Amino acid sequence: MTGKSVSVLKEVSSVKSFGGTQKVFEFESKQLKCTTRIGVYLPAEASEAGAKLPALFYLSGLTCTEANFIEKSGFQRYAAQHKLIVINPDTSPRGVKIEGDDDGWDFGTGAGFYVDATEPKWANNYRMYSYVVEELTAVVGENFPVNTERFGITGHSMGGHGAFTIALKNPTLFKSVSAFAPISNPTKAPWGLKAFTGYLGKDTETWKAYDATELAANYKGPAIELYLDQGDADNFYKQAQLLPENLAAVNNPLVNVKFNLRPGYDHSYYFIATFVGDHFEYHAKILNA
Amino acid sequence: MTGKSVSVLKEVSSVKSFGGTQKVFEFESKQLKCTTRIGVYLPAEASEAGAKLPALFYLSGLTCTEANFIEKSGFQRYAAQHKLIVINPDTSPRGVKIEGDDDGWDFGTGAGFYVDATEPKWANNYRMYSYVVEELTAVVGENFPVNTERFGITGHSMGGHGAFTIALKNPTLFKSVSAFAPISNPTKAPWGLKAFTGYLGKDTETWKAYDATELAANYKGPAIELYLDQGDADNFYKQAQLLPENLAAVNNPLVNVKFNLRPGYDHSYYFIATFVGDHFEYHAKILNA
Repeated sequence: MTGKSVSVLKEVSSVKSFGGTQKVFEFESKQLKCTTRIGVYLPAEASEAGAKLPALFYLSGLTCTEANFIEKSGFQRYAAQHKLIVINPDTSPRGVKIEGDDDGWDFGTGAGFYVDATEPKWANNYRMYSYVVEELTAVVGENFPVNTERFGITGHSMGGHGAFTIALKNPTLFKSVSAFAPISNPTKAPWGLKAFTGYLGKDTETWKAYDATELAANYKGPAIELYLDQGDADNFYKQAQLLPENLAAVNNPLVNVKFNLRPGYDHSYYFIATFVGDHFEYHAKILNA
Repeated sequence: MTGKSVSVLKEVSSVKSFGGTQKVFEFESKQLKCTTRIGVYLPAEASEAGAKLPALFYLSGLTCTEANFIEKSGFQRYAAQHKLIVINPDTSPRGVKIEGDDDGWDFGTGAGFYVDATEPKWANNYRMYSYVVEELTAVVGENFPVNTERFGITGHSMGGHGAFTIALKNPTLFKSVSAFAPISNPTKAPWGLKAFTGYLGKDTETWKAYDATELAANYKGPAIELYLDQGDADNFYKQAQLLPENLAAVNNPLVNVKFNLRPGYDHSYYFIATFVGDHFEYHAKILNA
């Protein structure tokens, strides 16, 4: 992590929910060089003197802001039940006005892919990897009653890719890891090819640092488990954008992929809402142990 | 109820959720004289041969369509748990192009107030009371595996007003009744005064047929219970738009108002999401008995 941050959080909204409070803050991100928003759910216990609660980070998918997970997943019930602080950032820089950043829904604004871009046009702002790993964790540690030794991470689709790659690269920072319908092998799928070419350039060797399947195959850290739910009626799954089987097939004794294929479920927040309780229970068992 | 309907339902969407299916349909409403949409949640048990499940009707508040409750309340978890079919209609006719119907957010489109308008300009389309009581219940009875003897009704804000007034006027049609932050005494509050003047005209005697507090005071049917949650940080409550205390103060031994004031909660779907599980449990106890 970086040294002491001086980020000043400005509260955008605060609403009581399941006994706790769902808040949204904004601050000036040093990594993204723009104002960015985060959702912060504080269970009731966060108000107790001396509280130090585990925190679960949720990374959203393509086109999302911080709002989607807050409004549509129903996670607050489970965060309250398991006494977890929940942090969910935006999916890209906003308002930085790079030419072409609004041309597509799967690249640029709303589609940061949780990488540190190296292509000059994007490299100044599109630093979602370092933003999450270094800046966001520090901002959260400084501003909320979290136990920084008990961080978990999860996400959906592009955000599932983010959760898995970030955890595989930082296995001591995040103690529990899961994903909903993650992009699991982006170097082999259209979304990933487009994003990595755009942000990282043509040298495909550099892409492997942000591909969960590649990272899992070459992983040498402490034993890690990746908990994964995938709906089999998910059109992006059927179109081979996600490729969770490639990740599940990795043969590395240090990596255990718990792969649940869910009959009939699609890629939407109805799928997330249905299984988010299972994921929170999974994280809570590890983070509250 | 009316005789056999010949309404043809067209499926707009269908998504698996908590083991069941969240659907949206549209059809040509005879009462509203326009195409209208309804949400229909079918728990897994609705697919079983010979199924006849209870149904809970949810009426939305000002500005809402059928989408808000479906996307933001998280009710599907509890509908699945209690094996309830859930029906949620739109809040007004749409696309009927009456001059002025889009001028305000609290009158006209999105603000039907669950009355049968008598003012000539609105009387042809704005028949949300008869739409819900006669047409929607019949359409549901003909198209889904419901037990028409086991209907419950609930709603939020303007829809809570709808749920309470409809139940008080039809206590044998709806066996269980609840509301979130209902407009409880509209003839004494700004929203109600504007809506009733517009839809019903200046004869305030006619307004009483659509005022829960008036209806409760004069109620002579079988004993009825009205289950009511209200957040005390709700700005519309503080502005005296809702007036639940007036309803709770009605002294009629046939009417029991279970009034729960919830500290710190506002008027939003975060409030609804927090307590919707309690409401479903309440309805299920009666409807599944």
